[in-house]
Amino acid sequence: MDIGSVGEFGLIASIRRRMKGKYPPEVRLGIGDDCAVLRPTGEVDWVVTTDTQVEEVHFRRDWLTPYQIGWRAIAVNLSDIAAMAAQPFGALAAFTLPAAIEVAFFEQMLDGVCDLGFRFDCPLIGGNLARDPSRLTMTFTVFGRVPRSRAVLRGGARPGDEIWVSGRVGGATAGLRTFLQPISLPAPVLETLRRRYAQPMPRVREAIFLRTANGLTSLIDLSDGLAGDLGHICEESHVGARIVAEALPVECGVHEVAATVGEDPLDYALRGGEDFELCCTARPGALAPLVDEFRAQFGIELTHLGTVTQEPALRLVKADGSEIALSPHAFDHFQA
Amino acid sequence: MDIGSVGEFGLIASIRRRMKGKYPPEVRLGIGDDCAVLRPTGEVDWVVTTDTQVEEVHFRRDWLTPYQIGWRAIAVNLSDIAAMAAQPFGALAAFTLPAAIEVAFFEQMLDGVCDLGFRFDCPLIGGNLARDPSRLTMTFTVFGRVPRSRAVLRGGARPGDEIWVSGRVGGATAGLRTFLQPISLPAPVLETLRRRYAQPMPRVREAIFLRTANGLTSLIDLSDGLAGDLGHICEESHVGARIVAEALPVECGVHEVAATVGEDPLDYALRGGEDFELCCTARPGALAPLVDEFRAQFGIELTHLGTVTQEPALRLVKADGSEIALSPHAFDHFQA
Repeated sequence: MDIGSVGEFGLIASIRRRMKGKYPPEVRLGIGDDCAVLRPTGEVDWVVTTDTQVEEVHFRRDWLTPYQIGWRAIAVNLSDIAAMAAQPFGALAAFTLPAAIEVAFFEQMLDGVCDLGFRFDCPLIGGNLARDPSRLTMTFTVFGRVPRSRAVLRGGARPGDEIWVSGRVGGATAGLRTFLQPISLPAPVLETLRRRYAQPMPRVREAIFLRTANGLTSLIDLSDGLAGDLGHICEESHVGARIVAEALPVECGVHEVAATVGEDPLDYALRGGEDFELCCTARPGALAPLVDEFRAQFGIELTHLGTVTQEPALRLVKADGSEIALSPHAFDHFQA
Repeated sequence: MDIGSVGEFGLIASIRRRMKGKYPPEVRLGIGDDCAVLRPTGEVDWVVTTDTQVEEVHFRRDWLTPYQIGWRAIAVNLSDIAAMAAQPFGALAAFTLPAAIEVAFFEQMLDGVCDLGFRFDCPLIGGNLARDPSRLTMTFTVFGRVPRSRAVLRGGARPGDEIWVSGRVGGATAGLRTFLQPISLPAPVLETLRRRYAQPMPRVREAIFLRTANGLTSLIDLSDGLAGDLGHICEESHVGARIVAEALPVECGVHEVAATVGEDPLDYALRGGEDFELCCTARPGALAPLVDEFRAQFGIELTHLGTVTQEPALRLVKADGSEIALSPHAFDHFQA
């Protein structure tokens, strides 16, 4: 049964049913009118972001399950809320859909959206469904709240600050490679890498934890690659950065995949993108005392990568002590 | 020169430059970080909506100028803000673009977005640009503010209320027909009809004017056709409606276009959709005293169409006094 037989309003009714009892106090009116109605309460700022996932650009239907397509599409937006150290509280969903898509496919996609959204207290509060002749696209707009003036921006890094990263990097790119060509890997390693690409976990709670530590000066999520995203921090903060290659917490299996494909594993970590880990800068000594608690609470590492510099350049210190300049250019959609 | 040569970050920088000095007090941080930062001030509610325009579904590049494509895409969202009787204050823009699009095309599209957005004090506060292999799509998320608890919803219509509509209806559908086949019309009539489709004018100020009149009970904008949108009001209000065919303010030229194509002009008015006029219900006698002032302020009519009924059906009273049942079904993207 394709979605044409249920129709736009049938699909919307199905989404609306899933949201029963899920709205936070800010949401006075959710799905069902021309707009959602939100009521600001208390001394907060709201943050808002939007991001689109396009079939055949960001994912393929033969790589990901419908569940994973939905999960990934809201995950990349929740990650932007994490990058401000805010708590999500609602999302708008704008999908374009070929009319031949099956109802079961649509519902499984929604399962993925809801499982991840509800995990972070982020229900759907509105949206739009439109037909697309050929391609599935999913645009989410996600809202978050943060105590007033406490959103952590890109522009606060100062020379001498430490540079830190959460979790492991390079895994999403390696995972993507395993869809593009067969690569021999132990099953659990393959599974982890593919999951890094297919079902990224936004670091919402980790970011809020880091904000509550005094001394955090800037924060970003890794969507364009570590070099690109650290480049964004440097640009907005008018500083540079020196990071240590040996310190990079490269995901297990990245070296094997890179060797098979004939690429440099460092490139996966520095330019790969879509790991959706956090990269932050902090006053010297501010985060080191929290490393054990971070690991205990979240089950991932917090790793000291390098130092913010006055000179506005991005440099990588290699194992032999030599330094190379990194181009800060992030992944660009139109200059692939 | 195509957008690939400027790149994603070049395009974003161009948008960011246009927004200098345009942000209202709510916008603490606009384009340039992972999220925009908004600060609620005073006793207000915020409304938010999202809508996507898809090439080859909602428009074609050989029908509309790039300027009109941009204008129309933000207009349909501003119209949803009007439908809550709110004042827009900012928008997020998520575009998917073929890399071969010319920079000049993109900039003209932005001209259309900005000319209409700025007219309603609605700058771009963030967004996303992604590649699409074949199709241009534009998703806007627009924010509005309204005095607390004063947003006008769909669910407030009561039996005995009057039904009113702004401006003229059926013009957008007739305009669309003139793109689909050559139709002989006087040049100014053709121009008006095409403009109704290509550059709709959201009724933001008109809606706020109507809200300040006491007695408004429900409000919607005409995106799915009068029968469909009045059907939404009836459904959410648990009422019915009786409207008078002779009262329908049909746009000039609609009869000629319908006669040429061999369709019923009433269908253009009732089912056509995308006129983006306002349809509202009000307590008996509340709006009649305002008709002259409405015309004087806005240059368009406010027309009394019929009555809200207890019986949950949509009925049309024809010129000979006979009544027919109207199917309330709105345009459905997946049941075309």
